[in-house]
Amino acid sequence: MLTSLVRANLSKSSFRTRTDLGVWRSSSRKLFAMQEVTAKMHDSAIKEPKSGDPARVGKKKDEKFMLKTAKGTRDQNPVQMALRERVFNVIKESFARHGAEQIDTPVFELKQTLTGKYGEDSKLIYDLADQGGEMLSLRYDLTVPFARYLAMNKITNIKRYSIGKVYRRDNPAMTRGRYREFYQCDFDIAGQYDPMLPDAECVVIACEILSKLNLGEFRVKINHRGILNGMFKVCGVPDEKFKEICSAVDKLDKSPWEEVKKEMCEVKGLSEEAADKIEAFVKFNGGPELIEQLLEQDIGKNESAKKGLDDLKLFYDYATEYGVEKHILFDLSLARGLDYYTGIIYEVQLVGEGEEGVGSIAAGGRYDGLVGIFDAKKRSTPCVGISLGVERIFTLLENQLAESKAQPRSVQTEVFVCSVQKDLVKERMRICAELWREGLKAEHSFKNNPKILVQLQYCEDKQIPLAIVFGENELSQGVLKLRNVATREEVVVPRANLVEAIRERLANTTV
Amino acid sequence: MLTSLVRANLSKSSFRTRTDLGVWRSSSRKLFAMQEVTAKMHDSAIKEPKSGDPARVGKKKDEKFMLKTAKGTRDQNPVQMALRERVFNVIKESFARHGAEQIDTPVFELKQTLTGKYGEDSKLIYDLADQGGEMLSLRYDLTVPFARYLAMNKITNIKRYSIGKVYRRDNPAMTRGRYREFYQCDFDIAGQYDPMLPDAECVVIACEILSKLNLGEFRVKINHRGILNGMFKVCGVPDEKFKEICSAVDKLDKSPWEEVKKEMCEVKGLSEEAADKIEAFVKFNGGPELIEQLLEQDIGKNESAKKGLDDLKLFYDYATEYGVEKHILFDLSLARGLDYYTGIIYEVQLVGEGEEGVGSIAAGGRYDGLVGIFDAKKRSTPCVGISLGVERIFTLLENQLAESKAQPRSVQTEVFVCSVQKDLVKERMRICAELWREGLKAEHSFKNNPKILVQLQYCEDKQIPLAIVFGENELSQGVLKLRNVATREEVVVPRANLVEAIRERLANTTV
Repeated sequence: MLTSLVRANLSKSSFRTRTDLGVWRSSSRKLFAMQEVTAKMHDSAIKEPKSGDPARVGKKKDEKFMLKTAKGTRDQNPVQMALRERVFNVIKESFARHGAEQIDTPVFELKQTLTGKYGEDSKLIYDLADQGGEMLSLRYDLTVPFARYLAMNKITNIKRYSIGKVYRRDNPAMTRGRYREFYQCDFDIAGQYDPMLPDAECVVIACEILSKLNLGEFRVKINHRGILNGMFKVCGVPDEKFKEICSAVDKLDKSPWEEVKKEMCEVKGLSEEAADKIEAFVKFNGGPELIEQLLEQDIGKNESAKKGLDDLKLFYDYATEYGVEKHILFDLSLARGLDYYTGIIYEVQLVGEGEEGVGSIAAGGRYDGLVGIFDAKKRSTPCVGISLGVERIFTLLENQLAESKAQPRSVQTEVFVCSVQKDLVKERMRICAELWREGLKAEHSFKNNPKILVQLQYCEDKQIPLAIVFGENELSQGVLKLRNVATREEVVVPRANLVEAIRERLANTTV
Repeated sequence: MLTSLVRANLSKSSFRTRTDLGVWRSSSRKLFAMQEVTAKMHDSAIKEPKSGDPARVGKKKDEKFMLKTAKGTRDQNPVQMALRERVFNVIKESFARHGAEQIDTPVFELKQTLTGKYGEDSKLIYDLADQGGEMLSLRYDLTVPFARYLAMNKITNIKRYSIGKVYRRDNPAMTRGRYREFYQCDFDIAGQYDPMLPDAECVVIACEILSKLNLGEFRVKINHRGILNGMFKVCGVPDEKFKEICSAVDKLDKSPWEEVKKEMCEVKGLSEEAADKIEAFVKFNGGPELIEQLLEQDIGKNESAKKGLDDLKLFYDYATEYGVEKHILFDLSLARGLDYYTGIIYEVQLVGEGEEGVGSIAAGGRYDGLVGIFDAKKRSTPCVGISLGVERIFTLLENQLAESKAQPRSVQTEVFVCSVQKDLVKERMRICAELWREGLKAEHSFKNNPKILVQLQYCEDKQIPLAIVFGENELSQGVLKLRNVATREEVVVPRANLVEAIRERLANTTV
């Protein structure tokens, strides 16, 4: 059963629907309802006007006790965890299918390790209190700790994945899957390799995972920092403003051009003329033909842009061999906010998702300079990677699940041991002990003398496929009844053949 | 392969030894060597006298850049992660075998949620910096967040497990598996049930997991807060000193009696007479016969102690039915430091481990009052649980592995696609794409024109069982060579039958 769970894709049909058991609907519904209540509690807590008031800093000691999780975070209930395990297993399988090794780094790093890596977003980093030791911060992503790991261990090539929680003091939008604590699943390739070979494989992996998760059609937007830099040059942006103008372009997925232009000109002091030229470029998106067009234009004469366009041409070639070219869209408005990218950048979005949607669900790119920052001799190790924003995936799957009648199981129990008379608790223990020794997943009641109806109801609530039912009568005859919980059929089985009989029935039951 | 990984026990023999490949020894050795270097770096950093100096607090800005992880934490390299995944899978399988659901809670909680739950150990809690929002702390264990979760969601019965990182600003002893960031694997049963039924199952699970992990013989020490309280009463300890004297007794596993007595009398103001009476008790350990003896003595007349002794008697009964009684030792010196325990307490130790060992590797007990603290109406939900300290288990397994010649695999790749001539990169891509679509785990080089020896060396380093080898010659004949990496045998396979041929060979290869 674990095996089938591990292998299960996340199609709706893989959740068992149980219309035959009308009355027993079920704990999973309640759990979702509960989650909604929790989310509302959070929302009201977030709106509480005083919680972020700087005037109250340091005056919290007499605060009333609040029964809640920290702002922007949530608990995961058993149904959500079952969903999560399935998604993680799909992702891990895909990473492993491409030969990746797993590493893990601590949740906090020395503060200085994170300093200067995230541009304008650095203000979102959580710091730990100064309690008399090192100055520490919670990790903001898995990429910077990975680069620190490579430099510290002098590793110059590796194909690695990491799955872990990261932390951002951002404005949470929890109904859209934006949290302050969230999981990232990162796959990265470090090493001196030939152009676009590792880059293409990162995008193949993203496509593979999204296809397996059955989230509907998706699009991989690509662009290149070389093309952006060439574009800025051609548009007359001064060199020292490239980074901040790039940050402004990055906001185009959320804000209209007029707002972005305002930021460029009024906040960041760009000339109106340069901004208008940028506008003309960022409207472009298309396929390989757009690359050819740009190569013919002025921008194609810029060395940095030409290198980027050649890279993307090769990328399209490889994407075609790998059979994922249909998902790719070259989009000149894609910028990615983080400072450390140096080459191709990409972002995966679901098609048909408007502004109200969950935004990008995977993103990444090439960052050839980051490891060098940590290396004592500034030796660089080229890297490229992709990061999956799984909270957004979970939010989509949870919504799908809430709309459907499907009820995923949150326990894996195969057989529940029921007694129909008093004083049989030790007999139930002996049976369970035998089943556990054989590796079967079994439970019995924690009451000495539970009612039989309560025991069977538990089986139906938890979608446990089989129940053993016995009393003094069965014991004296050396038999037990084996019950199919869904159909309520019972067969009498000799005590000595119990394990075999259970295995046989499990093999013929779909759970 | 994932399946076999999931199911694999952690016996040494399950790691493949490769004496047939002398020259290619191997990345895993290097990785262990690297870990040692890292550990030494840590140790020197820890001894750095100024790092904890309060005089330096707030003066860290001009500090030299240090390439290291935070004090008391470590990265996990690919070999360690492979080991970790196996251990986690054994643990998760066991939890699931007993019908547990999984939940997860955030890494940080409101500071007030943790306040007053950990007695003297509260000073070890990590706080987050006050950045103008809520006051937050990193979780110290998974038990308090679980109790908060139950109260917040009004859940009155659940059998749940959680696996997650917890944080303690303790003195790290990393060579003995004591870290500041470490995983706990917790199984807990909440609900109003009959005496000792859930309690016994928690201990059964611990025994099951330790047996599966093949760590050698182990002992489950048990005691009971009711017995300790009765003992303190009988010895003449004033009621208001119970908690602090209990904390002192808890240190007996690390300190000799004389030191503990000193703490009791000199620091905590206990009379010498009372301390001497305690000494007479805490020397006792034994089996059910010791329970009977104590019931006959003065302490057996104390209501609280009698209740505890009756509980343990029943516990022994149930442990016998479950077949784990041989591991149990009733030990009056076992106290457990945390405030929240109210009934049975237990601690699992490996037999033969002296003072230099890793200490207890699992522990827990009953805490019937904790949820009530969080409930608005102070309704209590009885709970009992067990927590596995997996870092200590990893430390033991890593040491075992370093001593043996065994080399666990850190990648799962089944087949590596090699080309023997130039300009075949796109052909390699097409083959990989086909294998991936079929769910096979495949890799190829990120170089356009890799040397064949380099490609085969990679296969041997990473213990990849199969390689596809081809050049123009094979392509023109519509065939490929399939190579067994270990034996170096090659067979020619029609291109059209490739997937089938790989599957067949994988089924006959032990990896």
